[in-house]
Parts: sequence; structure tokens; C-alpha cells
Amino acid sequence: MPLFRSPDDLARVLAAGPSADERALSAARKRQSELTKPPGALGRLEEIGIWLAGWQGTDRPHAEPVKVTVFAGNHGVAAEGVSPYPAEVTRQMVANFERGGAAINALSRAFGLALDVVALDLDQPTQSFVRGPAMSEAECLAALNAGAEAIGGDWAIHVFGEMGIANTTSAAAVAAATFGGSGTDWAGAGTGLDARGIARKAVVIDDALALHRREARSAFEILRRLGGRELAAIAGAVAAARAKGIPVVLDGFVATAAAAPLTLAAPGALSHCIAGHVSAERGHRRLLDRLGMAPLLDLGMRLGEGTGAALAVQVLRAAAATQSDMATFAEAGVSGSDAG
Amino acid sequence: MPLFRSPDDLARVLAAGPSADERALSAARKRQSELTKPPGALGRLEEIGIWLAGWQGTDRPHAEPVKVTVFAGNHGVAAEGVSPYPAEVTRQMVANFERGGAAINALSRAFGLALDVVALDLDQPTQSFVRGPAMSEAECLAALNAGAEAIGGDWAIHVFGEMGIANTTSAAAVAAATFGGSGTDWAGAGTGLDARGIARKAVVIDDALALHRREARSAFEILRRLGGRELAAIAGAVAAARAKGIPVVLDGFVATAAAAPLTLAAPGALSHCIAGHVSAERGHRRLLDRLGMAPLLDLGMRLGEGTGAALAVQVLRAAAATQSDMATFAEAGVSGSDAG
Repeated sequence: MPLFRSPDDLARVLAAGPSADERALSAARKRQSELTKPPGALGRLEEIGIWLAGWQGTDRPHAEPVKVTVFAGNHGVAAEGVSPYPAEVTRQMVANFERGGAAINALSRAFGLALDVVALDLDQPTQSFVRGPAMSEAECLAALNAGAEAIGGDWAIHVFGEMGIANTTSAAAVAAATFGGSGTDWAGAGTGLDARGIARKAVVIDDALALHRREARSAFEILRRLGGRELAAIAGAVAAARAKGIPVVLDGFVATAAAAPLTLAAPGALSHCIAGHVSAERGHRRLLDRLGMAPLLDLGMRLGEGTGAALAVQVLRAAAATQSDMATFAEAGVSGSDAG
Repeated sequence: MPLFRSPDDLARVLAAGPSADERALSAARKRQSELTKPPGALGRLEEIGIWLAGWQGTDRPHAEPVKVTVFAGNHGVAAEGVSPYPAEVTRQMVANFERGGAAINALSRAFGLALDVVALDLDQPTQSFVRGPAMSEAECLAALNAGAEAIGGDWAIHVFGEMGIANTTSAAAVAAATFGGSGTDWAGAGTGLDARGIARKAVVIDDALALHRREARSAFEILRRLGGRELAAIAGAVAAARAKGIPVVLDGFVATAAAAPLTLAAPGALSHCIAGHVSAERGHRRLLDRLGMAPLLDLGMRLGEGTGAALAVQVLRAAAATQSDMATFAEAGVSGSDAG
């Protein structure tokens, strides 16, 4: 039975998700305060270790195994000249993922992450959303369910990547519909547009917003009208992970934009998500600010595919390792602080 | 035969080090430009991959295996009340390292890093440097050589950590002697001083600078007069790695301060070093600015032990993996950019 059978199911699935375990959070904070180091000296690793503990219901969380799922989709809006790469690159890159040649393959091998690639009806690009909704209701539900199917098994952490020529245009439109603002506020260089190309992209986004703004008010309608199959799949996967209380590391601008509309559907919709990095793509920092998320990494990456999040997973591994595998002052016989 | 037999040997060892391999740098840049991604899309990973390539003499660098060496020393200046922890914690933490209970143990296990701990004459604290030089010439040379001994074998990357109650006071004094400024400019909370404690620490540093400033002008004299055994060991290890052209990931304020005086001894002394992270310890950002280094991570860590650098090693692994293990456009049959 598919998880999403009607547009209202997004809100239903999100609202039914568990909360972080308060007893585990308390126990993890207590354990953290007893570890052999000055209080606070591990910075953000401490908060992340406690956050993982809350979702896993234990004061000793783990960060293995990790699953990366890359969703690929083709976009009708690519025909509007919003990318320097031709649309056939989406399919070529899927073949590259399958042969192990892309950046996310190299990172998954280096870090021992399981990697799946899900190509979503690449021979049926979405409709250009300056002409009408990108997807029908059935198409959008199918994409949400394709995402939900990525959740299952015993993965401690999920990462969702994307590939789709023109999808930063879709992401910018989704971000604008979710949080307001115009094409100029959200359009960036994507894979390498110059200033003139970015200006053209902003106009395309403004045209789409003018066409859809009245109807694009719910998470589902924003994703259906302005998203793409891979964006809807990421939204579906993030929602399904929320339903099971499994932590997610968000990747760059497109993946974050795909998840952003969920915040309109239910409070705490993204409480199981952490921002892996801030991309060099222009709208990402603004988007993270609107979501109240502080990225773990800032390395000028802007590739997508889940690459930034795959690297950020190492921060979660460090957090879990220190939270769970260090000795306490009592165990180690180390003296505390005079101040403590 | 020890590497350092006289104070002048620091400059000699550094100046005799190799340069990065220009042919490998060119080949790595060419390869980087042909990988299946938009140019620049991997951000800092691209520059790091090329930098590793230059030191390893190949366009396909690697980032394994990695060695972490933690040096521990005791400081006479601890008696001046500059730390909230008693001096015996240095020895207790060395025991904790040896039993595997500290943060650097947990991170080394999680990331598969080899870890060595070198305790440097813990029963002979250095002289409090407000009363005289911290070390004699022979003591400082012995500490430099203890560091140099950590270099050897087939390690692709070295990380140097430290433990020593009161050593942020020593690091601040070393930084001030190297780059100018007063105690107030460089003193921070260390393991957890309050504002009054930091003010007292700044006075101690100013007293030390007044006593030593005239003689503390060379790398050796700065380390000898104001450093500690673990700081001198890190300086010796960094210099020995430079002599062999082996990349080093610098850790936090203390480790970076230990390496900083080397820049007075030879141009390009730290060209084989990358700043792993910026610590929450107050002087670290200023120190990295003076060194012209942009840190890879900024996670509010301030523990030392090599912990920030151990995590940053994962960024180098990601850089090496993408530089070396991705397919090129030609190999993958992926179309290039219209702009390209």
C-alpha cells in the first residue's frame, strides 16, 4: 500500500510521526556532562550527539549504517534555457552513477555509505511550469511514494541527493512559493550560469510564480506545480523518515528546497533533519535561515547528488562516537574542574 | 642521529624540504577540470585534492593511512592559576588516552586513524615562564626531536594533538611573541576560565612577554622560552614532516600556535599544512588570519587532543576520493556545458 494516496496524506504522515524521546535526551545530556573533557569543548558535536540520542531512544546513539538515495528527474523547464547543460545530461549522469563514476559514488566508497539511484520517468519530463503545473496529482503522488520507498531497513541515517538538469530553477520556485520573495531573491548560477543567465532564470521563476501563486499554497500543491519528480521524491522520503523518526542529513539547495514545503504541512516536520552544509548556490543560505537551520559545513560545494550531506555524515559519526564511546570522569579517574 | 642538534637546525631542516611537485599540480588541475561535474562544483575539495596531489607527486592523491600523535607536557605556569583544572589532570588524561577513553580515541576508532600518545617528561614540568625560560636549550631540543620521531613510515597525512594543563597560556604567549600583540589579544577561556580568570591569564602572558620579548625572536627561542614540551614537539614534528613533504592537518589553538614560530625560520615553512578547523578558543581565528589559513571546519570545538583535525581529515579523504576516483566526461560519455 503506498504511503501517499491523496494530497492530504503529507500532513497526516508528518503529524503521525514520533517525538524525540525525552528520557533519552535527558540521559544523553547527563552522559555528555560526565565525559572526560571540559563541558562544551566538543562544540556542535555535543548537541548533535544528544539530538541523535533523542531520535534513537538511547543515551549512546550510533551513526551506522548510512543510506544515500539519489533521485533523478527531467524538467520541462529545461527548455526555457535555464541551464548551461543539455537535458540529456540527466540520463547520462544516471548512467555515470550506475557505473560508479560520479562524485557521490567516490564519496560513498570512501566513507562506506550504501548508495541507491532512483531514476524517475526520465523519458517523461515534467511540464514546464511556466505553462502549467509541473505534474498531475497522480504524477506527484507517484513521486512522493517513490521517495517513501527509500525508507525502510535498519539505516541509522538517511541522505537524499538529486540530479536533474534545470532543477535549481524548480528549487528556487519552490523556495519562493514556500517562503515568499521573487525570482531574483532565489535564483543562482546552478551548474554555471553567468549573470545574464541568472537574470533570465529569475524571469522564468517570476513567470511561474505569477501563474501558480494563488493555488501553490500547500506543500503538495507547491511540489506538484513548481517541483519536479526528484524534488517530490525527496519530500516524500523526508516525510516518511519523519514518520519513523529516522534522522536525515539534508544536502544542498535543491534537496533543502524539496523538504522546505513540508514545514507548511505540520509543525516540527523537519525536526529529524539537520543541514549538512551550506551550498555556494545563492539561495541556500537564505533558505537555511528561513528554516532556522545552521549548516554543519561551509566548503563552497554546489554539486548536489547528496555530496555535501555525505561529507557532513562524518560530523554525525564524530558526534555519535564521542557521545557513546568516551569514558566518563568517574570511569577514567580524572579530576574535574575547580569551577565545576 | 637526532634531527635537531642545535637551535639553528630548525631553519636548516625547513629550508631543505621539497617543494610541491609542479608537474603533479598541473596534471591534477587538468584531471580536476575533466571530472564529471560542473567546474568548481566541489568547492574547497577541488583545491585540497590538487594540493595533496602536489605533495604526493601524482594527479591521483590518496588520504590513507593517517597518523595522529598526541603529545603531552606539564607546565610550570600552571602554578600561576591560569587553568580551572589541577596540573595532575595531564597525567590522568594520558592514562585515559592509553586506555582508549578520551575523545581522540573515540574519533580515531570511528575514522580508522592510527593513534600514538607521547608523554614528555610529565614529572618534570617546564619552568614557569614568568620566572625564566620554560626550557633549557637541551630540553627544547629533546622535545623537538621527540616530535620529529613521530614522522616516518608511510603515513599519507599527519595530525598532531596535545594535552597539557595550562597550555593555552603557553600557546597565547608563543602567538604573541610570533605575531605581536598583548596578553589580552591572545588569552581565551581555555578549558573554562571565567572573565576574571582570563584577565589574570592575560596579565601572566604580559609578564612573560616583558621578561622574554628581547630574546624571544627566533622560532627556537620563542618555543624554548614561552612554549612547553608538547608545543616544541609539535613544532619539531611539523618541521620534520615539511622536510619529507608530508601533509599535516593542524588542530586547534595550541597546535597552530606551536607551528606558528616556524614561519619565522623559513619561507613556506607551513606550505604542507592545512588548518583543520577554527577552535572556539579566542585567539585561534586571529592566529589563522595571521598565518593566511582558512579553516576547513567551524564547529565550536575547543578540546585539543587533535580532535578537530581528526574530523577535518574526513574532508581531505573526500577531496582525495573525488580527485582520484571519479570518472572524466570522456570516460563517462557525459556531455559538457554549452558554456564550456
